[in-house]
Amino acid sequence: MATQALADRTVSLTYTSLPQEVIHAAIRSFYNWAGCTVGGSAHPATTIARKTLARFSGPATSRLLGSDGGVDVDAMHAALLNGIASHVHDYDDTHLDTIIHPTGPVASALLAIVETLDRPVSGEEFITALVAGVEAECKIGLAVWPDHYDVGWHITSTTGSIGAAIATSKILNLPPTQTAHAIGLAATQVTGLREMFGSHTKSFHPGRAAQNGLLATLLAAEDFTSSTTALEAKRGWANVVSTSHRLDEQIGSLGVEGRWEIARNAFKPFPCGIVVHPVIDGCIRLREMLVKEGIDVERVAGVRVEVHPLVVELTGKTEPRDGLEGKFSVYHGGAVGLLFGRATPAQYEDDVVVDPRVVAVRKKIEVKVDPESRADECFIEARVDGRDWSLKTVYVEHALGSLERPMTDEQLTEKFLDQCLPVLGQERAEKASQWCWGLEKLVDVRCIKDVL
Amino acid sequence: MATQALADRTVSLTYTSLPQEVIHAAIRSFYNWAGCTVGGSAHPATTIARKTLARFSGPATSRLLGSDGGVDVDAMHAALLNGIASHVHDYDDTHLDTIIHPTGPVASALLAIVETLDRPVSGEEFITALVAGVEAECKIGLAVWPDHYDVGWHITSTTGSIGAAIATSKILNLPPTQTAHAIGLAATQVTGLREMFGSHTKSFHPGRAAQNGLLATLLAAEDFTSSTTALEAKRGWANVVSTSHRLDEQIGSLGVEGRWEIARNAFKPFPCGIVVHPVIDGCIRLREMLVKEGIDVERVAGVRVEVHPLVVELTGKTEPRDGLEGKFSVYHGGAVGLLFGRATPAQYEDDVVVDPRVVAVRKKIEVKVDPESRADECFIEARVDGRDWSLKTVYVEHALGSLERPMTDEQLTEKFLDQCLPVLGQERAEKASQWCWGLEKLVDVRCIKDVL
Repeated sequence: MATQALADRTVSLTYTSLPQEVIHAAIRSFYNWAGCTVGGSAHPATTIARKTLARFSGPATSRLLGSDGGVDVDAMHAALLNGIASHVHDYDDTHLDTIIHPTGPVASALLAIVETLDRPVSGEEFITALVAGVEAECKIGLAVWPDHYDVGWHITSTTGSIGAAIATSKILNLPPTQTAHAIGLAATQVTGLREMFGSHTKSFHPGRAAQNGLLATLLAAEDFTSSTTALEAKRGWANVVSTSHRLDEQIGSLGVEGRWEIARNAFKPFPCGIVVHPVIDGCIRLREMLVKEGIDVERVAGVRVEVHPLVVELTGKTEPRDGLEGKFSVYHGGAVGLLFGRATPAQYEDDVVVDPRVVAVRKKIEVKVDPESRADECFIEARVDGRDWSLKTVYVEHALGSLERPMTDEQLTEKFLDQCLPVLGQERAEKASQWCWGLEKLVDVRCIKDVL
Repeated sequence: MATQALADRTVSLTYTSLPQEVIHAAIRSFYNWAGCTVGGSAHPATTIARKTLARFSGPATSRLLGSDGGVDVDAMHAALLNGIASHVHDYDDTHLDTIIHPTGPVASALLAIVETLDRPVSGEEFITALVAGVEAECKIGLAVWPDHYDVGWHITSTTGSIGAAIATSKILNLPPTQTAHAIGLAATQVTGLREMFGSHTKSFHPGRAAQNGLLATLLAAEDFTSSTTALEAKRGWANVVSTSHRLDEQIGSLGVEGRWEIARNAFKPFPCGIVVHPVIDGCIRLREMLVKEGIDVERVAGVRVEVHPLVVELTGKTEPRDGLEGKFSVYHGGAVGLLFGRATPAQYEDDVVVDPRVVAVRKKIEVKVDPESRADECFIEARVDGRDWSLKTVYVEHALGSLERPMTDEQLTEKFLDQCLPVLGQERAEKASQWCWGLEKLVDVRCIKDVL
């Protein structure tokens, strides 16, 4: 049965069984999560939640990444608040087969509880638990994809609660039965409606999922009972939250045939929905082409982009009014790519979205749907006014950040530093970057409180 | 639109608009909740959760009903733990039209946050917020009943999160927009799978619902944004968690045409599923009949009961092995009714369920399904061995605790004292009873910490 099988696989997973590519993928996932969490630590969604809930925190044991130093809150609140911060810029990782953002719920819960333990936790042990959690949530996600998402569930948090329970059960070495009860307790807390997209509550979802999973594990560890068939039962998770499921097949595929979901985890180069990424990528390249030829980008008279239909459906806002709306505007994404050669959270600040220079470029962009197009490709052509009328074209076969063209470690480092520098300052940011890349060799992950 | 309409109705509800029967129903609901919460305070589900989570509580402001005295935990944990305790004996209230147990999530959240306020909260104000919360959850429940329950959701907690958000938003005087955001934040935390029935996690549901709703309100009060169409949107609560809904109709009926859901709230005379209640009721009456005639109940040679088909489907366990299984055994319910003339939590202790005297009576009970029978009626006949062979019959038209034959205030008092005496002692229990009955006239509900 799926629940008990998942519990058994969790208990038996060892570091030595992890292929090197899986370990490296886990480190990249953790690294990207840490940078995003620091980067999101000052966002209003994070700071409102932190301020509001301060009076409900027990003695501080755990760190809010990006804070001034030391420990800030108890583990339950660290799970929630780091989880919110990790997702709030829409800049985190994506398991493309399910569009789950897997590391947020798992790492936020895992790190929070690790900091409370009275023993050292090695990087190897931490990675093993992280992988267990991410594999669990992605396999469960695959088991209900796409029906579950289509119904209206935010699959990141609905599966994230269970992933967080798995990772924390693993790090606490719970036996199989308690792990199964933790799965049940996590499964019964189904958090995340897609209707919340576009509001603070979207980022609340992975935070609450982290907390749901951690709570589940702590209760199960003290023999609070649940169901040991929570996932597969007639009125269990999969049947209640989806119109169909393939639980046995997906749980059965855990760690076999060389298919590890974490190795298929992708990282966003731009802080918005991935459907816009090919256009941003192409517009950055267009800018580079123009600059090389000594042509001022403001002399571009018109830009035509041909994209997958979903791009217009999901991000068709022509006149975004603030940063959040900018994330749902392919026009804004293209404009900042062309004008600034980059799209980081800074280019999605409210004042940039209404900047007349940006608005002017945005108006020059025409979007055409090509039903034959793949979601990660686009074709761009630009007319340049002035000295020599000419037509410039760019074809993006696979956007940066896709599985075919993943972000390199160097690009992830750049993204990390870009997010951490304003918060931590240069010295701390660089030290943090090295520390995170060295996760595998860490003797004790608990020293994070001195680093990030 | 339903979400904003619910928020507006919440804000505009006044104490003076409540009919006297609604006020009395609210007091009865609160009174019954308080007794059940004290009665459930020592159950392992409650004590495990309390012990496990103690280290995550902020400074204590709020009381766990039935504890030694004073305040015990922060409001967030009081909401959770009192919510668990209120439901753990399956002895709480039931809105029969939806089988929601409405007061647990609402009162647990409301009382917890009231205790943190730096102003007096009158009984009238408390009752108004309680009614707002209960009406909201029951109307939303009616809007998705029975599809939502049939899918597999524990409707008490899925609607309870929203009810708790409404009651706490009301007591904090949130304006309509913030109330709508609180509804959204509560709606996105969908807690409670029916698969958990029979385990500790069933009672976790109303506790977590109380906490979900309180968290939603506190965040919304600080302008954490959500959706203002959370209930009715295409990918909002009702469409995601149910195959059909009548939100507009139900929200539109709030407080009109004299139909108040809290006035249709029923109270359980016996701590088990209501389908067993007619049989227990009838067996108690049978015992009274025998006692009156001087016949020892152990001389009963056989008992036949005719019941609604659901009784056997839900509670057909012929050989329950512990207290929890006893709740799912119509045979056990009948046996304790006949043997002891009562069915309180004491008759569902593990040792009573395996007591040879009880087992012997249980084996004499035969259950026959009558497809024509209503759920709240039953027919019983008994053969008595010995001096004068005779056939005794009892017909229960409406079980005690049904809307047609509600528990009287005196019976509720007896139930309250029965639950509170072992925990509080006689003097405190009687004082608490008087205090709760006097809710309407209280100048400051916050003094509960000195009472219950």
